[in-house]
Amino acid sequence: MAIDLSVKDLSFINEIKSMAVIGTSAKRNFFFLKNHQENFKGPLYAINPTVNEIPDFPKENIYKSIKDVPGKVDFAFISVPAKHVLSVIDECIEKGVKLVSIFSAEFSDAGTKEGIELEKELLKRANNKIRILGPNGMGLFYPKLGIAWRGFFPNKKGNIGLIAQSGGMCNIAIYTSMELGINFSKVFSFGNGADLDFVDLFHFLSKDPETDVILLYIEGIKQNRFELLKKFLSQNTKPVIALKGGKSPTGSEAVKTHTASIAGSNKIWSALFKQFNKIEVESLEQLLYTAQIIDFYGINEFKNVAVFSISGGYGVVLVDLIEKYGMNVSPFSNEIQNKLDKQFFINGTSSKNPLDVAAQMFHSRTLVDIVDIALSDGKIDTLIMDMPSWYFNHKYYITRDTHFNENIETVFKLGLKYHKPLFPIIQRAHCPKESHRIAKKLSKSKIAVFENPLDFIPLLPKISDFKRRSLEM
Amino acid sequence: MAIDLSVKDLSFINEIKSMAVIGTSAKRNFFFLKNHQENFKGPLYAINPTVNEIPDFPKENIYKSIKDVPGKVDFAFISVPAKHVLSVIDECIEKGVKLVSIFSAEFSDAGTKEGIELEKELLKRANNKIRILGPNGMGLFYPKLGIAWRGFFPNKKGNIGLIAQSGGMCNIAIYTSMELGINFSKVFSFGNGADLDFVDLFHFLSKDPETDVILLYIEGIKQNRFELLKKFLSQNTKPVIALKGGKSPTGSEAVKTHTASIAGSNKIWSALFKQFNKIEVESLEQLLYTAQIIDFYGINEFKNVAVFSISGGYGVVLVDLIEKYGMNVSPFSNEIQNKLDKQFFINGTSSKNPLDVAAQMFHSRTLVDIVDIALSDGKIDTLIMDMPSWYFNHKYYITRDTHFNENIETVFKLGLKYHKPLFPIIQRAHCPKESHRIAKKLSKSKIAVFENPLDFIPLLPKISDFKRRSLEM
Repeated sequence: MAIDLSVKDLSFINEIKSMAVIGTSAKRNFFFLKNHQENFKGPLYAINPTVNEIPDFPKENIYKSIKDVPGKVDFAFISVPAKHVLSVIDECIEKGVKLVSIFSAEFSDAGTKEGIELEKELLKRANNKIRILGPNGMGLFYPKLGIAWRGFFPNKKGNIGLIAQSGGMCNIAIYTSMELGINFSKVFSFGNGADLDFVDLFHFLSKDPETDVILLYIEGIKQNRFELLKKFLSQNTKPVIALKGGKSPTGSEAVKTHTASIAGSNKIWSALFKQFNKIEVESLEQLLYTAQIIDFYGINEFKNVAVFSISGGYGVVLVDLIEKYGMNVSPFSNEIQNKLDKQFFINGTSSKNPLDVAAQMFHSRTLVDIVDIALSDGKIDTLIMDMPSWYFNHKYYITRDTHFNENIETVFKLGLKYHKPLFPIIQRAHCPKESHRIAKKLSKSKIAVFENPLDFIPLLPKISDFKRRSLEM
Repeated sequence: MAIDLSVKDLSFINEIKSMAVIGTSAKRNFFFLKNHQENFKGPLYAINPTVNEIPDFPKENIYKSIKDVPGKVDFAFISVPAKHVLSVIDECIEKGVKLVSIFSAEFSDAGTKEGIELEKELLKRANNKIRILGPNGMGLFYPKLGIAWRGFFPNKKGNIGLIAQSGGMCNIAIYTSMELGINFSKVFSFGNGADLDFVDLFHFLSKDPETDVILLYIEGIKQNRFELLKKFLSQNTKPVIALKGGKSPTGSEAVKTHTASIAGSNKIWSALFKQFNKIEVESLEQLLYTAQIIDFYGINEFKNVAVFSISGGYGVVLVDLIEKYGMNVSPFSNEIQNKLDKQFFINGTSSKNPLDVAAQMFHSRTLVDIVDIALSDGKIDTLIMDMPSWYFNHKYYITRDTHFNENIETVFKLGLKYHKPLFPIIQRAHCPKESHRIAKKLSKSKIAVFENPLDFIPLLPKISDFKRRSLEM
């Protein structure tokens, strides 16, 4: 197979004004139409030769064929049976549609001769006159315009792009983003990648002015596109966080079943990410948490960590984990240490790093000063603190410290003052409601809350390495 | 320092019938008294020379001195100022109290000459006539008898024992246990360990008929007790899960501040755990999750894992993680594979391991059969499945599969039928209420639910190793 260095222009995506859902039907409860109807900002048309009425959808926007639509249609979501896709594509080209998402499956994904032939024929008909996402993909999620293949997707635009063949991965990522308080510019689920493939979409996001951080879930790419991907990876200057699926022997086999991709050697991919300074992670959760940390705090180098704990034991374990992952919990500078010493007045506390507030917890006003002083130390890059959720539940109060909640929220926000990441660990421990309420609230202030230190501590050196190598490059 | 091979008899703990809280006061809102009052099963006395009345507490159980109590007192919780502890101990001995928890601090923990002397004097007065937990510890949590130093501690007895100097670690562990659905036999927070130390308590739990699994959080022990600990570790036959605090350079320093223990070399402790086949973990979360997995599913060897996913991509990543941690996702046996093939009838699914149900998800009755058949394979030791929480929220339904929730719960319980662990991964993804509701419900059926595969997959080989080595030993 000859090396394919072509790349498709997709800049028109940012100018989509109108869309159609082709093949919407009562059988599926007008699922994809209704989902797009939630938030799509421009005219939305429903196309089906046998449908005349759709509940809560304007009758005048229902057409038998896309050719009948009076105005322009820039984008179409297609979910007709595979055998009808070719004629639908012909009509879309005739209509001047620029981009289609083909949800319909049973093309090359079926692994049959017929399916493979059908996909070839599709590409021949498209003939570069129209761009295709899919078949067998969810297509495009573009919250700024309200393009969303599922219901209750967020309608807030962001600056994080995601590419994944798998629609299921995208669904989890998008719904989880609402928990984490991060927002996507665009998400692409490109399925079989018959026309637009991983390389085209990566190229687009790396040039897209609406995208600052790029997330990748890669199962594999065609051998003849590898050179071009390398070129684009080397040219790209945005932070890229990559999850490679199919690294293990069985995972690599599963990838063939899942998307008919060749997973390629794990070593090749890891070497590639390393060579071009891309952050590689191990799970979808790590992909999203890393994006959250970068989105909220920027690109930081985490060398010296301050630890703040209520339970000295928990603080000790935090220190062990931090140092295990190559960071330091070093002493504060003398001046800062002197200031801190003055803030501790209860027995059993420690004003050294790791800070152990113990029973001084419920003199919460002093905690504000303690964390403020600690973060003001020029040597300190970040602060990690543990705060189990029951402290936010009145039922558990053992104190007359009536401003506790208020003061602790002030503490959590001190990282913003110093432009240094402050990570609260809020264990759910019997108060899941409080833990969730606080985490949601803090995520709105761009503070990333975790329940488990191993969720994020291993990610910090990856971000540090990225920063260090970016400066060297 | 001469090697100390003495060990204290604590079997009387299981026979405690009555208790007193000495030093309860209005200033602290009768905190420790009220906490014990919640669940303590026998007579409970409040001791304070200056208190005559306590809201919602029987007046006839308030005494000026423990010597005035007419009946027997087996156990006392002491929170008087340090300087009064000696005389209180004299009175407790006179009264025949068997065990005291001394919460009061400012003994050896203060690091002062006075504190160290006071602790020596305390031990001299006790003279083995009374057993002491503390000073500077929370003492004993014993849910069977209702001994609980904090409010809203669980009142359900279990078979898991925990030893930790640090009261804060115990608090997090105990409140978290309610989320996880695991229950403690006894928890010891022994603080300075003046009398009862780590070795005594470990010996007690390893013989305690009420304890089947032992959790340890160790900061360090006295050099002269090391030999005895080794002996007890070697004799113990119960599963032990250990978290060593102070493994890193700074962590080891922090331990000195926190509990005045010598952390000892990380290598020595890890070698010890390995030699005596104890499970070592890295965080409090891992300690509790490992306990949960062992409590719910017993000691299993996890060699061959079946994977069930809705998103093929998520399934691929699961396979990668499982194989990274040394387990296999191997093909089903031929007979089982034939049976499974018959259950898959929707395009884009895969009946091989990893199972990818994709759009067949909402034919949930077939999922019951699929998982049942997969688990019936003699080669399969466990099944891991992903099921994002939005599937349990009606708002997101895209189907007329009205028995979905019911059928999925049946699926989750199939592990119980085959005595094989089945791990649901229920991502919170925008439906935290559903995720929490299902996790709580399943924990009551002894099914451990996780949100993140990295929370538990790394723990499975540790349990396998323990089982394998137990059989060899």
